[in-house]
Amino acid sequence: MLGGDLKVARRGLMFILSSPSGAGKTTLADRILQNDSEITLSVSATTRRRRPGEAHGKDYYFVSEEEFARMRDGGEFLEWANVFGNHYGTPRSLVEDTLRSGKDVLFDIDWQGAQQLDEVAGEDVVKVFVLPPSRIELERRLRARAQDPEEVVRTRMEKADSEMSHWAEYDYVIVNYDIDESEALLRAILLGERLKRKRQIGLAKIVRDMIGD
Amino acid sequence: MLGGDLKVARRGLMFILSSPSGAGKTTLADRILQNDSEITLSVSATTRRRRPGEAHGKDYYFVSEEEFARMRDGGEFLEWANVFGNHYGTPRSLVEDTLRSGKDVLFDIDWQGAQQLDEVAGEDVVKVFVLPPSRIELERRLRARAQDPEEVVRTRMEKADSEMSHWAEYDYVIVNYDIDESEALLRAILLGERLKRKRQIGLAKIVRDMIGD
Repeated sequence: MLGGDLKVARRGLMFILSSPSGAGKTTLADRILQNDSEITLSVSATTRRRRPGEAHGKDYYFVSEEEFARMRDGGEFLEWANVFGNHYGTPRSLVEDTLRSGKDVLFDIDWQGAQQLDEVAGEDVVKVFVLPPSRIELERRLRARAQDPEEVVRTRMEKADSEMSHWAEYDYVIVNYDIDESEALLRAILLGERLKRKRQIGLAKIVRDMIGD
Repeated sequence: MLGGDLKVARRGLMFILSSPSGAGKTTLADRILQNDSEITLSVSATTRRRRPGEAHGKDYYFVSEEEFARMRDGGEFLEWANVFGNHYGTPRSLVEDTLRSGKDVLFDIDWQGAQQLDEVAGEDVVKVFVLPPSRIELERRLRARAQDPEEVVRTRMEKADSEMSHWAEYDYVIVNYDIDESEALLRAILLGERLKRKRQIGLAKIVRDMIGD
């Protein structure tokens, strides 16, 4: 039951997860998606080339530069960004349709994307920041291989620091001491948010039927 | 773990439960208090006479009219009310001390008390409204005994209607279809609220220690 199956009609929400890489966010996102049928991952449109194993419509919507520009200029993206010369954007209609159907959309994005979504869809947005348990543990995780050059690790740490410096812009924060515990905390946040009065659009009728004339 | 044991220092919250009588609120409150060591029930001061079995400091703080008036005039109540000639008030310092110690306080009060607490302590307040599953079920529960005169039941229903008409002033709403399910939902709301960034006052130091210079 937990994490789904509410009986009152509701509007879905945009569940945003941000964290420095190495904090466990992707594992947490995968678990939520796997165990909760009422939330799906946001699929971005991108102009970057498809890599082996990636599927159109599952990992990304692969589009041409012209198509991307047309969508962007037509206001079809909730947010978009240029990363190393490639464009990425969140298709508005997909998200809108999902929310209207009472399902949630999970976003695995950085603070800039989170900020943009918050600006255009604040009421629907729930922002969660995941922190690593300690700096030592973060560095251990970012030092993926023993032979990584020190400067590569340092660059990764700087990027992590930059991301973490935005923690205070989020509604909720989880310090990921233990992945099972953090999953439970994340599910509680999601479930609690679904129970917000303003999202349960079926309540007005229920109360109307409940109260006598 | 669920419902307690967060490792980051936090400020407690005021967890307000309201509902018409007969919706299951008291059972839910009892379960939360029993299974969660991080929340305690708010104990009111009252001028009404102590009934057999009631304990001073547990059920109520029994005070004289003079003592109550002194406390009220000294601003020692977060909210107070006069019900059928008896005074009831929530002692401010008790609640403040509990919140500061990182524990939560549960309030089992009606919409008027909820509104008053919201006005004086908005940031710390989380308001949950519990609805009965249906009007038929509500009436069944309010018709405590088969021989209750029809007008007594009608008066109870009118009081329930009046309370329910305030549902939209609450942050969260639970329709109590099943008591076990509702308990789980209530615990998710409570846990989620504890994870709000603004309540986790220990985070700033954690992040400061985490981010390199």
